[in-house]
Amino acid sequence: MQDIQDTIVALATPQGVGAIAVIRLSGVGSIELANKVFKGKDLTKQDSHTIHFGTIRDGETIVDEVLVSLFVAPKSFTKENSVEISCHGSRYIVKRIIELLVRQGARLAKPGEFTKRAFMNGQFDLAQAEAVADLIHSENEAAHQAALSQMRGGFSTEIKELREQLIHFASMIELELDFSEEDVEFASRDDLRKLIEKLKYVIGRLIKSFDLGNVIKNGIPTVIAGKPNAGKSTLLNALLNEEKAIVSDVAGTTRDFIEDELLIEGVAFRFIDTAGLRETEDKVEAIGVERSREKMKEASLIIYLFDLSVESVTEINQEVNRLENLGKPFLLVGNKTDKASEDLRMQLGKSEHHWTFISADRKDNIEALKEELMKTVNLDGFKTGDTVVTNARHYESLLRTREALDDVLRGLDLQVTGDFLAMDIKQSLHHLGEITGEITTDDLLGNIFSNFCIGK
Amino acid sequence: MQDIQDTIVALATPQGVGAIAVIRLSGVGSIELANKVFKGKDLTKQDSHTIHFGTIRDGETIVDEVLVSLFVAPKSFTKENSVEISCHGSRYIVKRIIELLVRQGARLAKPGEFTKRAFMNGQFDLAQAEAVADLIHSENEAAHQAALSQMRGGFSTEIKELREQLIHFASMIELELDFSEEDVEFASRDDLRKLIEKLKYVIGRLIKSFDLGNVIKNGIPTVIAGKPNAGKSTLLNALLNEEKAIVSDVAGTTRDFIEDELLIEGVAFRFIDTAGLRETEDKVEAIGVERSREKMKEASLIIYLFDLSVESVTEINQEVNRLENLGKPFLLVGNKTDKASEDLRMQLGKSEHHWTFISADRKDNIEALKEELMKTVNLDGFKTGDTVVTNARHYESLLRTREALDDVLRGLDLQVTGDFLAMDIKQSLHHLGEITGEITTDDLLGNIFSNFCIGK
Repeated sequence: MQDIQDTIVALATPQGVGAIAVIRLSGVGSIELANKVFKGKDLTKQDSHTIHFGTIRDGETIVDEVLVSLFVAPKSFTKENSVEISCHGSRYIVKRIIELLVRQGARLAKPGEFTKRAFMNGQFDLAQAEAVADLIHSENEAAHQAALSQMRGGFSTEIKELREQLIHFASMIELELDFSEEDVEFASRDDLRKLIEKLKYVIGRLIKSFDLGNVIKNGIPTVIAGKPNAGKSTLLNALLNEEKAIVSDVAGTTRDFIEDELLIEGVAFRFIDTAGLRETEDKVEAIGVERSREKMKEASLIIYLFDLSVESVTEINQEVNRLENLGKPFLLVGNKTDKASEDLRMQLGKSEHHWTFISADRKDNIEALKEELMKTVNLDGFKTGDTVVTNARHYESLLRTREALDDVLRGLDLQVTGDFLAMDIKQSLHHLGEITGEITTDDLLGNIFSNFCIGK
Repeated sequence: MQDIQDTIVALATPQGVGAIAVIRLSGVGSIELANKVFKGKDLTKQDSHTIHFGTIRDGETIVDEVLVSLFVAPKSFTKENSVEISCHGSRYIVKRIIELLVRQGARLAKPGEFTKRAFMNGQFDLAQAEAVADLIHSENEAAHQAALSQMRGGFSTEIKELREQLIHFASMIELELDFSEEDVEFASRDDLRKLIEKLKYVIGRLIKSFDLGNVIKNGIPTVIAGKPNAGKSTLLNALLNEEKAIVSDVAGTTRDFIEDELLIEGVAFRFIDTAGLRETEDKVEAIGVERSREKMKEASLIIYLFDLSVESVTEINQEVNRLENLGKPFLLVGNKTDKASEDLRMQLGKSEHHWTFISADRKDNIEALKEELMKTVNLDGFKTGDTVVTNARHYESLLRTREALDDVLRGLDLQVTGDFLAMDIKQSLHHLGEITGEITTDDLLGNIFSNFCIGK
């Protein structure tokens, strides 16, 4: 780990023009290095967690007036000496300062290198490090809470406890091997079986949570379907516009990332390819319905919209039957209630399915529809604060752990000797260890941290 | 100034995803306000310029782990209590934290409001405040140095000295008016004339510097002209590519803003509508040349390129004559020297104009061309560190000041009474004062600061 001694530098704030930009330095020599280009107090003689005003100078030329924040090891994110230079948010100034620091001996940081150092220096484990990237990219309440809980160690704690119990057994079995001549059994095979069963149950729950985790991280792929002119676009706009107004109230320019994404109580509903659905409205009925049906296959949830002003009960029942055959969660929504007969509403209201009646045009009952959306999506795991697996790498390691545990169980069934059992247990330990980073390879680490942004 | 008591909040770093984002609070109650949502040390009991780790909480829910920097009045940018919250750089987290702070009583800052408060609280004058925005938007060395020098008060000092001398005279004349019965003359009319002449000289120099300032701020509009196939696009690419390589070496993604802009020793040459010029290469000669001629009228500088492999001395001389008639600075460049006759080069070398011989294709002598570019542009004022006016508002105030000074001179010629002189002097003082903000109106301030970005 030669490069751990380098001082690395990167822009930590987003690219672009803003009031300020923050340039981050980390490494044993980072404070001395910053001090070479800073005119103000002697940075090497200041306390950790203090801020100093001064100028950055390239020889005699002033590059900018800045605030410098000092973090003395181990009281920093990376656990190394670190410096944050808060300069005016000009791309030109950022470039000049970084160039200057590189000339003084700093090295441009690779993506994720600050977090990698934090991991290397024991600030947190691998699953927590990965959560940092997830946290930065989380764009809804649920994803954010899952990432935050993982970063704060929730998931890691669970994995570590499982691992410790297994390690205990593995060491008992190793002990047996040392006394193999004497045919003793330090590790009760019954207790081991019970532990493995318990582990499998917990890991199975974590594996199952990945579906939810995926939904949390990426949003719930949702389609609004229905015959042409049922009012699909009107409904989508009614759902989205309201939300957009709330968001743009505060952040101003964040609208781009909620296009066609609806947040209800922090859960994202992602409307897939609704442009295509919108298109169908001007085309012949058959094609439109066919297309919607294709889209519905990609969706996790279907909002099916009926035009109550024109469709008959027979037609509606036919559509509902087809919908049931898709085997996906769906919501039945009757639109244009203001133009529908009271009789039709009553008939539908008595059917075995739950109906929501709205007027997309008048924005009537949209709130009720949102409540139904939330009910349809079962987010119990998330709501109860259980650990949720959101990372595909963790998911795969969990699957492999379960396979190895199955091997242990098979071994117990076949009453294999301790050394074979120990091998399978070690295999499970290996895969569990991959999650939190007790087991790592350079390839794995390189792969994980290269997905980070630079400056993190 | 009721709103000066508010606590204002805004994202200070650019929008988008990055490792960190910084949210800025300012106002007498900002530290108490931040303390309400921060779990960690009691922020109200900490020293200025210290950094504290903790969590931002919305009730019991953790929103993020953050670093909070404290600035206790008057030791802050705004001279008010200020807080900077450094959170993970997720748009979602930024939105959540800002919403939370607004719920606790902060108000979203208007564009430039932090700088406006800094101005209102006497941190700096108006010209310096304006330079902050210029500094953030400066994208080359020259613009950056001009803005930085203005921010650090160079320009303001010069204006203030002129103003003080005028104020001295104005007060002497006022004194005369008090003793008007006695017909005394406290202010020597000869000395006043000398001062006004001196002021006019200095202001004239500042007014003249605006051309340079404009060039510094916006780059030098440059056109590469010449007959079709002279190699214009090749030359543009040869000039730009080299520079792009240097820039992308360090900052990575900053390439977008140097498209068709060439930086030589920190001075920007902005190539105007070269796409149009490129287009002409495939068209008949007449149209191509006509178009180039149109473009040349917009340019401040023309690089005129000759294809030495095909053009004759007679043709070349005709073109040069037409070029001279445009009355713009130009550079004569002979291209394709590798395919040109030695005789032609010699003949051109002996002409009254300076020639640069290159091969755009082989990238021969491009450096020499760049040196010629720098020589053609007279940046003496900038190089010697003289004050340069870059702001159109200041330019206008200077013009008006000069008019008022002319009125004073006319008054002296006509030997008008002291009260008339005093009126004209006051008019000059008014216009000078507009620059640094001694004289302001709400309209003026609103106008200036609304051009800032939010968070500054």
